[in-house]
Amino acid sequence: MSNLLKQFHLNDNFLGAYEKLVVEQVIPYQEKALKDEIPEAEKSHAIENFRQAAKMLAEGICEEEFYGMVFQDSDVAKWLEAAAYSLVNHPDAELEQRADDIIALIGSAQQEDGYLNTYFTVKEPDKKWTNLQEAHELYCAGHFIEAAVAYYEATGKDSLLNIMKKNADHIYRRFVEEKAEGYPGHPEIELALMRLYDTTKEKKYLELAAHFINVRGVDPDYYKKEAESKGWTVWGMNPEDTEYAQNQAPVRKLTKATGHSVRAVYLYTGMAHLAAETGDESLVRACETLWDNIVKQRMYITGGIGSTNEGEAFTKDYNLPNDTAYAETCASIGLMFFARRMLQMKKDSRYADEMERALYNTVLAGMQLDGKRFFYVNPLEVIPGISGEAVTHRHTLPQRPKWFGCACCPPNVARTLTSIAEYAWSETEEAVFSHLYVGGELDLTESKGVKIQVETGYPYDGNVNYRIVKDGKEKTELTLAIRLPGWCKQLSVSRNGGMVCQKNEDGWKVIAPGVHHQDGYLYISGTVGNEDVISVSMDMPVYRVYSNPAVAANNGRVALMRGPLVYCVEGVDNNGDVLGLSIAEGTILYSGYRPELLSGVVTLSVPGVRTKRTEELYLTEKPEQEPVNITAIPYYAWGNRGLNEMRVWIPEV
Amino acid sequence: MSNLLKQFHLNDNFLGAYEKLVVEQVIPYQEKALKDEIPEAEKSHAIENFRQAAKMLAEGICEEEFYGMVFQDSDVAKWLEAAAYSLVNHPDAELEQRADDIIALIGSAQQEDGYLNTYFTVKEPDKKWTNLQEAHELYCAGHFIEAAVAYYEATGKDSLLNIMKKNADHIYRRFVEEKAEGYPGHPEIELALMRLYDTTKEKKYLELAAHFINVRGVDPDYYKKEAESKGWTVWGMNPEDTEYAQNQAPVRKLTKATGHSVRAVYLYTGMAHLAAETGDESLVRACETLWDNIVKQRMYITGGIGSTNEGEAFTKDYNLPNDTAYAETCASIGLMFFARRMLQMKKDSRYADEMERALYNTVLAGMQLDGKRFFYVNPLEVIPGISGEAVTHRHTLPQRPKWFGCACCPPNVARTLTSIAEYAWSETEEAVFSHLYVGGELDLTESKGVKIQVETGYPYDGNVNYRIVKDGKEKTELTLAIRLPGWCKQLSVSRNGGMVCQKNEDGWKVIAPGVHHQDGYLYISGTVGNEDVISVSMDMPVYRVYSNPAVAANNGRVALMRGPLVYCVEGVDNNGDVLGLSIAEGTILYSGYRPELLSGVVTLSVPGVRTKRTEELYLTEKPEQEPVNITAIPYYAWGNRGLNEMRVWIPEV
Repeated sequence: MSNLLKQFHLNDNFLGAYEKLVVEQVIPYQEKALKDEIPEAEKSHAIENFRQAAKMLAEGICEEEFYGMVFQDSDVAKWLEAAAYSLVNHPDAELEQRADDIIALIGSAQQEDGYLNTYFTVKEPDKKWTNLQEAHELYCAGHFIEAAVAYYEATGKDSLLNIMKKNADHIYRRFVEEKAEGYPGHPEIELALMRLYDTTKEKKYLELAAHFINVRGVDPDYYKKEAESKGWTVWGMNPEDTEYAQNQAPVRKLTKATGHSVRAVYLYTGMAHLAAETGDESLVRACETLWDNIVKQRMYITGGIGSTNEGEAFTKDYNLPNDTAYAETCASIGLMFFARRMLQMKKDSRYADEMERALYNTVLAGMQLDGKRFFYVNPLEVIPGISGEAVTHRHTLPQRPKWFGCACCPPNVARTLTSIAEYAWSETEEAVFSHLYVGGELDLTESKGVKIQVETGYPYDGNVNYRIVKDGKEKTELTLAIRLPGWCKQLSVSRNGGMVCQKNEDGWKVIAPGVHHQDGYLYISGTVGNEDVISVSMDMPVYRVYSNPAVAANNGRVALMRGPLVYCVEGVDNNGDVLGLSIAEGTILYSGYRPELLSGVVTLSVPGVRTKRTEELYLTEKPEQEPVNITAIPYYAWGNRGLNEMRVWIPEV
Repeated sequence: MSNLLKQFHLNDNFLGAYEKLVVEQVIPYQEKALKDEIPEAEKSHAIENFRQAAKMLAEGICEEEFYGMVFQDSDVAKWLEAAAYSLVNHPDAELEQRADDIIALIGSAQQEDGYLNTYFTVKEPDKKWTNLQEAHELYCAGHFIEAAVAYYEATGKDSLLNIMKKNADHIYRRFVEEKAEGYPGHPEIELALMRLYDTTKEKKYLELAAHFINVRGVDPDYYKKEAESKGWTVWGMNPEDTEYAQNQAPVRKLTKATGHSVRAVYLYTGMAHLAAETGDESLVRACETLWDNIVKQRMYITGGIGSTNEGEAFTKDYNLPNDTAYAETCASIGLMFFARRMLQMKKDSRYADEMERALYNTVLAGMQLDGKRFFYVNPLEVIPGISGEAVTHRHTLPQRPKWFGCACCPPNVARTLTSIAEYAWSETEEAVFSHLYVGGELDLTESKGVKIQVETGYPYDGNVNYRIVKDGKEKTELTLAIRLPGWCKQLSVSRNGGMVCQKNEDGWKVIAPGVHHQDGYLYISGTVGNEDVISVSMDMPVYRVYSNPAVAANNGRVALMRGPLVYCVEGVDNNGDVLGLSIAEGTILYSGYRPELLSGVVTLSVPGVRTKRTEELYLTEKPEQEPVNITAIPYYAWGNRGLNEMRVWIPEV
């Protein structure tokens, strides 16, 4: 099978800068944090927990108590996964050695039967597997399996892979062979086991993933029974809130995306991966239903999901408040995972479109432009004095905070941005698929005898060149399938200068033989010469987006986009006041690149009016208005210039 | 002093119907509920608690445990207060006898030293006065004091008054003479003691009210210290949340209305009443500051206050979400109390305007048109499927529920609507003030030798006639001061057919001698003939209201009002869809009376457009629109025709 991670060398002006920040800032910072080497940061103790667990196994006692969340181990796993990815394009022998040392430490903290979890090894050895609802054992195992697969694919080293196979075998024995009841409170192991299966091709891992997916929600009272028997709790979570943990029904019966949004999309990712592998029709249909529910009823325009802080959860169809949005960075990353596996099931651009939406808006917004601070919560409207301060807005911080105690989002951003190849590309026997426009070189020498070099100024420029370079003299047949995004109304594609396809208001026109358009992908097939160039040229005007009126918060409002980027207005560009701004209907929207601003952005200039603030709260005369030119910036770049108002959905007049 | 309650005989088509419902439905239902005679209702046990307390005092044991909330006693007090008021205009010997019996029972539950509280007498005799933060002893005392004053003023009977004077004396001894520390977690006793002072003219009650007002917040850590020493808790309330209980600072230093909104306005009412009595300038200023903060930054257009469910509380300036509003009915009643006492301090129509706003919108909306169901929470936007269902909207029920376990709002509505005379009128040496337009007869024979008969179709008709009828032959000098509401742009006032004053776009024009306009009141002085008629004729067009753009939820939106009534659109009148509606700017708004609808309402017909619902969540083309005539109804009448969408603030196009 292909190893896109190794085969793709990222060389992208835009995403490359983010990858660089992750490699140079985030991964080293996180390593230090895990090792408690950052004095001003909250203590992690995550590596120390492994030391203590190893000591406990070796000597029967330990020197220090376990410290941290019950899932503290997973911070180490996420770091290892991100570090693994970073080693592909940025070899670093010292980093690799330190990672190897940590892996060796992990190995020494593994019990003989394969069990691996420092919380239970150090602190609660008698309570293993008694609290699947809260205790995250399977969740941590999943993250280590993901790290193991990544480390193996990135470095070829299999020591962590073997540790985690042994751990997965242990879990298989318990839950499949010995028929232990239960399923994980926080889905994650399902998607991880599918990745382990992809890498090892060992059927039992697919079988174990299928097991957890198939038993989930068959007994929706499982956590209730567990709560009655376990006699201990981590947080006192309500075992009857089945929607929270997506166990209100067997997964094939789920019709609405509910509960904790990260748990939800992690589960759906595992389901889609399994369905893609097995073709299980009822599972395929359930995935499609859940996908549609998210995308058509429960997703912010930024690709944010989970509209409430309470339970970090989905709520109800069309309930998408802008100012109190939760829209966790990790949930949008999970939506990218889900999209990737839906694409694996079916090559349809509507999945890639949403993957792109989540990536370029909420996921990138998660990280400050200097890589040093992170948003966990991504509101679409921020008002200093209310956001982060009112009791209803405590979660919607108006500026990115430093690393949290529960460090979920930063390492998730890190592992996603360092493994972008796996989202940008996929390969089947039929074709090579380009899902995202990312500069770099994809080495297909082994499978196709070519390399594909991509050059683009995306997401600010709509021109993308695919240069296909043949390595030898034999003829090569290749189908390159390029996603043509839904947001683009006018585009043309040429091959070696000759037009092969056009899209405009009249629809699609495919001109050349060997070229066809299906489900949003343009399939270009044929014999590759020594050097073929396929050029995609997308018009990139600013456009207005309207919301289904069922979304109460957005009635009468409009959002601005350009390409895949959602725009917002920020106080700093608009005299400190965005709440008074309205955009004039039907006016032309100007855009221009400003290299000096926010690491280089295209800003928009929009004719509109400002309604002036008033002394009284309610007025029987329309408050005074003045014409203004509104400046909008990409949403991902907001919050980088101090405390100020921000808004995505703006009244249209 | 005057006893407006006794002097005013209500005879008002509109408010009279509400008073009738209260007398015929609410008070009898509540009495049965208190006596546990309604099988399907949640057990109250409130009367039984008094029986048990009396038995405990008489025999040293009791047969049943205390049952209910720690403040269960106050339900009896609120009922007694409402029953007292109802006896004025609706004498009912049997009801009065039953009330007397309950009062006798209360007397037998009072301890020898004056202490009165069934929770502590029956359940926790050793914990009296140890938990001022949570245990509501002073709160319950306050409600019984209010009931005692009301019962005395309504019936002339002083047995409850004497019980409560004895109780107040007990509290005086403890907190003033013996210098016990502390102040009530839920303000109420302050305003009640001021009423007791008004009725008895005994200085010690004013002194005790002033004591609780003056010590509040001087030590903001008082509840923290109490929590450390008391060793028990009712609900585990956070003693450090000083904003919640308005003890973050001494009351004279408060600049923002914070915390639990009912507690807040009850406190401010007591402060304003004390300030009105004493003229204490720093207290006057604090009241004005808090009033302005509410009215200019923290109040819904409906007179609702307290914008979050969490703590039933005020949040931050301009944070007024429509769909998740708390806006408790009781809080708007409390705002009426506060307004009444501000008016006592200064006759300025801006206080009466807001009192009227709260009454005709949120307070009336609290009760179903049949008097059988009640809203505690009064959102300005309701969406079935989200409201009452999403985790963020559990409190915003889309239909009025039955009587709650914690029965605060229905009896509060009952006592307010049966004592409307005290809000509609006040009398000073200088003048008789008409604050609200309410049909009926005010008997001023004793003080002025006249009766004032008011005839009006308010709030739907802007004509109000004050017929002043002299009782004898002596000449009578009278100044009648009529509030002319801020919402009215065009009006004229005549005396016996001759114009005395006009208001139009050019401002005020006072024509006759002996007439002057000050702070929104028209003072008409002179000798009263045998029958003088003063007629106020107010234009009552529909008008648009805009919000300060600082209120994010209302940007680009408009509300409709006519007279004092805020309007809303409801699905049942608008093809089931109000979220898609926009009102056309600048168009004429029609209104017409529909006697058959909702007990008789003026509906509005408004040209606008409907944006049709769409399959997709986000669209790059403006969704299809169609012209529609929008029907709006008064906000107070919403939710009487089944489950449907409702909205006050509507986009304007």
